[in-house]
Amino acid sequence: MRFNYQVIMNIIGLLLLLNGVFMLLCIPFSVYFGEGGLIPISISGGITLGSGGLIWFFSKNPTNKELKKRDGYLIVTLGWLFMSCFGALPYILSGAIPNFTDAFFETISGFTTTGATILTDIESVHRGVLFWRSLTQWIGGMGIIVLAVAILPILGIGGMQLFVAEAPGISPDKLQPRIKETAKRLWLIYFSLTAMETILLWLGGMTFFDAINHGLTTMATGGFSTKNASAAHFAPHLQYIMAFFMFLAGTNFTMTYFGSHGKFKKVWSNEEFRFYLGTCVLFILVTATSIYFTTGHSFEKSFRDGLFQVISVITTTGYISADYTKWSSFLTMLFFVMMFIGASAGSTAGGVKIVRHVILFKNSILELKRQLHPSAIIPLRFNNVVVHREITFNILAFLMIYISIFALGAVIMASLGVDIETALGSVATSLGNIGPGLGSVGPVDNFAHLPMLGKWFLAFLMLLGRLELFTVLILFTPYFWRKS
Amino acid sequence: MRFNYQVIMNIIGLLLLLNGVFMLLCIPFSVYFGEGGLIPISISGGITLGSGGLIWFFSKNPTNKELKKRDGYLIVTLGWLFMSCFGALPYILSGAIPNFTDAFFETISGFTTTGATILTDIESVHRGVLFWRSLTQWIGGMGIIVLAVAILPILGIGGMQLFVAEAPGISPDKLQPRIKETAKRLWLIYFSLTAMETILLWLGGMTFFDAINHGLTTMATGGFSTKNASAAHFAPHLQYIMAFFMFLAGTNFTMTYFGSHGKFKKVWSNEEFRFYLGTCVLFILVTATSIYFTTGHSFEKSFRDGLFQVISVITTTGYISADYTKWSSFLTMLFFVMMFIGASAGSTAGGVKIVRHVILFKNSILELKRQLHPSAIIPLRFNNVVVHREITFNILAFLMIYISIFALGAVIMASLGVDIETALGSVATSLGNIGPGLGSVGPVDNFAHLPMLGKWFLAFLMLLGRLELFTVLILFTPYFWRKS
Repeated sequence: MRFNYQVIMNIIGLLLLLNGVFMLLCIPFSVYFGEGGLIPISISGGITLGSGGLIWFFSKNPTNKELKKRDGYLIVTLGWLFMSCFGALPYILSGAIPNFTDAFFETISGFTTTGATILTDIESVHRGVLFWRSLTQWIGGMGIIVLAVAILPILGIGGMQLFVAEAPGISPDKLQPRIKETAKRLWLIYFSLTAMETILLWLGGMTFFDAINHGLTTMATGGFSTKNASAAHFAPHLQYIMAFFMFLAGTNFTMTYFGSHGKFKKVWSNEEFRFYLGTCVLFILVTATSIYFTTGHSFEKSFRDGLFQVISVITTTGYISADYTKWSSFLTMLFFVMMFIGASAGSTAGGVKIVRHVILFKNSILELKRQLHPSAIIPLRFNNVVVHREITFNILAFLMIYISIFALGAVIMASLGVDIETALGSVATSLGNIGPGLGSVGPVDNFAHLPMLGKWFLAFLMLLGRLELFTVLILFTPYFWRKS
Repeated sequence: MRFNYQVIMNIIGLLLLLNGVFMLLCIPFSVYFGEGGLIPISISGGITLGSGGLIWFFSKNPTNKELKKRDGYLIVTLGWLFMSCFGALPYILSGAIPNFTDAFFETISGFTTTGATILTDIESVHRGVLFWRSLTQWIGGMGIIVLAVAILPILGIGGMQLFVAEAPGISPDKLQPRIKETAKRLWLIYFSLTAMETILLWLGGMTFFDAINHGLTTMATGGFSTKNASAAHFAPHLQYIMAFFMFLAGTNFTMTYFGSHGKFKKVWSNEEFRFYLGTCVLFILVTATSIYFTTGHSFEKSFRDGLFQVISVITTTGYISADYTKWSSFLTMLFFVMMFIGASAGSTAGGVKIVRHVILFKNSILELKRQLHPSAIIPLRFNNVVVHREITFNILAFLMIYISIFALGAVIMASLGVDIETALGSVATSLGNIGPGLGSVGPVDNFAHLPMLGKWFLAFLMLLGRLELFTVLILFTPYFWRKS
């Protein structure tokens, strides 16, 4: 048989069981707030646990336990799809989002940590369901860490190989014994930072419910908020706390691990971290200066609005404390371009990611030198290590496919009757897993008014972006399905 | 010495002499129409001939005749700049364009065959000067043929190496003896097609003056028109003639040579030609169908408007017979994306060019296969020949640099206060040497209202695009100027 369907289904069953358990975590909030979320969430949890259990039961004790690369691609994509279908249940059953298209959109926007929403009035949704909404992002963020550390490199997703070269103690061939240990360590960081932010926000004056929700969606670089006004709802000092944790969420978790152990020199010597920090600082300075001189806001507000929005977009979180499309066309354009940056590999951030830009930039300079001396062999270095030509090649291919999909996507969205800026913005923000876009899907708008086909298409782009393109695209090649 | 300045200046002197001779070709029209263009054009020609003669005289009989690659880059870029400075004289002296920024913009838009204009009333300009305007494009188009065939491949511009592999009888090492013959053949095609179109347009009812001007600017894929309404000024049958010749101008001239000798099988077996034709047909069908159902125009008008605009943008000519930004946001977006296509290598068209897209597409598919089988060596084929990995690499680098410059350019234009669509459109059309853009530089608008800095920046982008990026960019690397 071409694929090991038994094991594939077994793993998907397990994922659904996990999903169901997480749903039950919403029950305390439903009970506490007593807004009627209890029954729909319990039923959703029951259905998900039941379905997961059945799938798992009928596929257990596989005759052949071996998983091939091809199986890996199917598991990752199918897993995300199954979880999004079942994850939509609480929205549908609670009546928060009655139709399946919108509920699926909201769920996959959660699991992919995008944060684009179709809710027009977030604050009217039962808080138990809102907690589930935040949890989908946290689960998605956690999933991405596992993917980035353990699975994508085995599947050969090139850009991630660089991260693996960085992550201590992990190499594809020695992966089996060490994966558990590393995954545990990274989850611990993820969990601790989430708890830490929650406590700080709570101490800072948020309600506990708002604090934990924002803790969950910050660390996932998700960006779902419990408030219609997003971060703009909260006081300046809370915005600074959120910005700080967004920055951490976009940092390579291995660097955070080093940092938490006092190994600052090791963090500073990491090239991607330096570029990540530098990029943020540069864009914050440009944006804050421009806001200050364009709008006449106070110096503090200009700085804070610039800082918050830049970090939010670069880390692909997508919280909003001010509307970046209202300042000037220069800043609108700048934020549009920022949607193509992305933060660090090995973080929960989506998008292109800094490391790819650095490799692209270095290779462009080298290509100019090669023009003059075609026979000279000038290696490309990253973190003082020579980057194999094949990896650079893979990164360039990734970038070009990313841009091509973006262009094609914008045409498709426009063909559905959406205006130019909205088409460009919605595709860029979905593919980059950010959240807010431009035009009618700008920072203070939502995605509810888009045509149904457009929502399905954007949902597809979110998954495509989240799984680093190749994992999903490969399923569309006849080659993948051919019997060898 | 690092560069052979004597020979560089000698060649630039010769280019200016040539430029001056072409200026004098405008005198008959100035005399015939008697609108006052005679004196300014004669003075411009005199200054250009005099300066060229002086530069040539003081740099003749060089002690060292050897030209290195580095000299080549300088000659090409400096040559285009010198010609644009002197080429601006007729506009300034005749009063048609009194300020230097605008005159330089119009001239470099001509020499790079872009066709973006700052003239708000073209029909009020002396016809002798208008003829010079058309001539700049024809000279530029001619220059590009020489560049594409003879110079760029020696300088190692990768995309062009593929064309060279196609062009019969040309290989970089055997170039010296054959270059004259090939250049002569291609110029003959260029000249014949220009003459043929002129005659057909004249017979079709245009005045001889309009016919020859449009002949000159079609074959250069330039797009300067003598009418404010561009091609929309003329009858449908004339638009069809122009569209046909635009298509020919965007065809690899070697294919036209084969075609004119009845070797149609050879033309059809050429992969780039098939993709070029296929791309045009596809976009024409989509556009015409969309126009028909959106606007309620007649079938013929929908077809003609679709055909004309698609060919005009894909071949980077830039004539306009209808405003593509007025139909729908879908078509506006489609034309925006089309600005990144470009026609065939070895033609006078600018932009990215079909061959690069084909290689990109094939490589993306291969990259997905490599994902599954990293060790498998699957070669990329173009025209049934294996494309060397280095060339593919170079093309990917080219595309990424192109996109990066586009993004940075759009931010820069927006920072000058231009709105988003205008910023995106003006940069795409300048870099792609097309002409019309989006927003306030759309098909029925002109570039006059842009801020001065924006005009200089766009002029720079035109040159960058025309010389295939690397030729100009390399001058900005410290590496280029370093003494070895």
